[in-house]
Amino acid sequence: MAQGKRRLGRGVAIVGAGMSAFGTRPDITNRELFAEAFTDMKDSVDKGFEHQDIEALYVGNCGAEMWESQSVMGNLCADIIGLTPRPARKIEDACASSSVAVRDGLIAIASGLYDMVLVGGTEKMTSLPINWTTMALACGSDTTFEGSVGFTFPGLYAAMATAHMEAYGTTHDDLLRVAIKNHSNGALNPKAHFPMTIKQVMEMRAAKAEEKGGPVPTWSDEMEFLNDPRFNPVIAWPNTLFDCCPITDGAACLLLVAEEIAREFTDVPIYIIGTGQASGHNLHDRDTLTSIPAAKLAAEQAYEMAGVDPGDIKMAEVHDCFTIAEVMAIADLGFFKEGKEAAVAAGEGKTARDGQKPINVSGGLKCKGHPVGATGAAQMVEIFQQMRGEAGERQVTATDIDIALNHNIGAHGTTAVVQIYERR
Amino acid sequence: MAQGKRRLGRGVAIVGAGMSAFGTRPDITNRELFAEAFTDMKDSVDKGFEHQDIEALYVGNCGAEMWESQSVMGNLCADIIGLTPRPARKIEDACASSSVAVRDGLIAIASGLYDMVLVGGTEKMTSLPINWTTMALACGSDTTFEGSVGFTFPGLYAAMATAHMEAYGTTHDDLLRVAIKNHSNGALNPKAHFPMTIKQVMEMRAAKAEEKGGPVPTWSDEMEFLNDPRFNPVIAWPNTLFDCCPITDGAACLLLVAEEIAREFTDVPIYIIGTGQASGHNLHDRDTLTSIPAAKLAAEQAYEMAGVDPGDIKMAEVHDCFTIAEVMAIADLGFFKEGKEAAVAAGEGKTARDGQKPINVSGGLKCKGHPVGATGAAQMVEIFQQMRGEAGERQVTATDIDIALNHNIGAHGTTAVVQIYERR
Repeated sequence: MAQGKRRLGRGVAIVGAGMSAFGTRPDITNRELFAEAFTDMKDSVDKGFEHQDIEALYVGNCGAEMWESQSVMGNLCADIIGLTPRPARKIEDACASSSVAVRDGLIAIASGLYDMVLVGGTEKMTSLPINWTTMALACGSDTTFEGSVGFTFPGLYAAMATAHMEAYGTTHDDLLRVAIKNHSNGALNPKAHFPMTIKQVMEMRAAKAEEKGGPVPTWSDEMEFLNDPRFNPVIAWPNTLFDCCPITDGAACLLLVAEEIAREFTDVPIYIIGTGQASGHNLHDRDTLTSIPAAKLAAEQAYEMAGVDPGDIKMAEVHDCFTIAEVMAIADLGFFKEGKEAAVAAGEGKTARDGQKPINVSGGLKCKGHPVGATGAAQMVEIFQQMRGEAGERQVTATDIDIALNHNIGAHGTTAVVQIYERR
Repeated sequence: MAQGKRRLGRGVAIVGAGMSAFGTRPDITNRELFAEAFTDMKDSVDKGFEHQDIEALYVGNCGAEMWESQSVMGNLCADIIGLTPRPARKIEDACASSSVAVRDGLIAIASGLYDMVLVGGTEKMTSLPINWTTMALACGSDTTFEGSVGFTFPGLYAAMATAHMEAYGTTHDDLLRVAIKNHSNGALNPKAHFPMTIKQVMEMRAAKAEEKGGPVPTWSDEMEFLNDPRFNPVIAWPNTLFDCCPITDGAACLLLVAEEIAREFTDVPIYIIGTGQASGHNLHDRDTLTSIPAAKLAAEQAYEMAGVDPGDIKMAEVHDCFTIAEVMAIADLGFFKEGKEAAVAAGEGKTARDGQKPINVSGGLKCKGHPVGATGAAQMVEIFQQMRGEAGERQVTATDIDIALNHNIGAHGTTAVVQIYERR
């Protein structure tokens, strides 16, 4: 494959990947979540590895200061899994924290300093009341210019959704079909926060109403259910409850090694062939509200380095913190045309697990959950498993996934990371 | 010079360095502090540089979530200085955040991904009442095992100080002489938080008492003043007020470039020839309280990579968040023997600006101030200026500083970074 002009000093491969169960995890700390992910990762390294060969740790974490009164998360994660005195650090870039951590671990191997590093992220978010958690997350916006006038994330993404509706005639039903699709994928993911289809949610709600002896609601289909404000209330219009990802506890990690030693650990390493990262202005200072400029730039860098184009990508995990985010993502990545074409892709089945471009087969942030500091690494765990044919019931079978991509947004687009993976 | 076994893919040099004024800086945000440091840095690059050639930004910040309700500090700093859409990230490793940020920027250049990056850190700490700030800082300890039983940082370092006293007969006066020495250096630093000698502080206090019409205290010398609990109260014994660094707002940054292009920007680049980083257990779980094991390991790595030994170091900026920390640092770095020899080095003039091993000629954290996320980068600013003979009144003249070192501790030693610099 042709190489882009920017190359890393040497190649890097993923030889192990694991994650904790995602969900509401009471009585467990960030470091314990990370340890759970680490144990899961260890089991995935077919030929094993020596613990002491891990030379450094890069941990993504967004807000443990606020949720757990705890900084120095890199060192604490190193300590609990027995890596001390290996160097560790925490990387924070809002919801893209762990993708940046992976990228920085990758760069460190490329520099020649290390041959093997552990990368990942963790976030414990359910320890505070929901209003405090919303405020904690809002620290990821621009506090001076956005937070100070009352913006929180459902509102910031609502501004992008309404702009998309205005510009392209996108409907709220288009957005809800993203949620239906992602729940249909996530229902097959045992580690998802809400492993249920929307239909199952609907039936559960009806059963609960019956149980309580009240009138039993009936809906002709999922769409009617999702349009029932008693069961799917507006959070910040047009973002209803089911347009928003949940507040989730979870961790994920990956073992990265220099390309030349990858086959010592597994016969099926997954190579990181492209990496891109860009920053963006905050929303109040941006030229467009219907795409994420940083994501387009990060994608360009990753495609160029990998020497592939959007058509080569067999599946992608993208950042669907709100349904509109997936609509923007699949356009910013060049999979679909920005506007109505991207907006209806889910509804038309094009992004389904057996569609032309499977998107978020893990269930995405929407269904799998979005422990912000762990999300990017968790996307990579799904890609690792899918590329190796180890994704169980939700394995993509319509196509052989030899090239895949993840797309992780920090905040409302102030950072974006896009990486491309290859199985050779 | 012989090279250690671990080498970076290519060399890296500092071609510019700058910092904001340190102190209590009301009505200024972290990003504005960083912009002030950036402007100062720009002026230091003799031959100039093109703004758009900066390819990435690495920002250390410890707790803006708590002090400013603000995450994503990397992107905000990028935005305010016009670097958007360049990739940016925040790195947090407590009080070593910016040293790790510098190290990660250095690694990124070594990887071949970038030729020029901006690295540094910022911290705005005076926005909260002091008790909240103490709590915010305590997030850097182990909240589960240390914070939960009431430990804050003056207490954690007091535990190390009392252990040192017990093991080696170190006296509180030994520790206070570190403060006297660092204030004597910092008095010559116009950017220091408290640019005053202890003698000046003493005279000021006496004058104030006279002004108020009360009895005018008299002390025979600084030591008698520092032992007067009315003017130097105990914070956590043996840490008195003058054993502790102040709570400071400030930022610092450096421009790093690949070695082969360094002379395009200045005739006197400062090369980073060694870098080391290690993590350590938290205090409750450590084998020793009289040294920082992570610092010893980081120093070993840095010396090995640089191919130099402690005797080659002409000056060092070390982490003196408390006076005992400097006593441990100069032993952990191999400059003095652990114990009484290190404890009396300041009192004997060995670490004075004109002594055999000048330590903290900037004034150190103790006098210059300790905006935690900016401290490591600020140490490097001093080294850059001293090595180039640009340190004004506080320039070390007793020796030519061709090789220097900085030592930056995260928290109570859960991280340590040591780097070595050379002027060729």
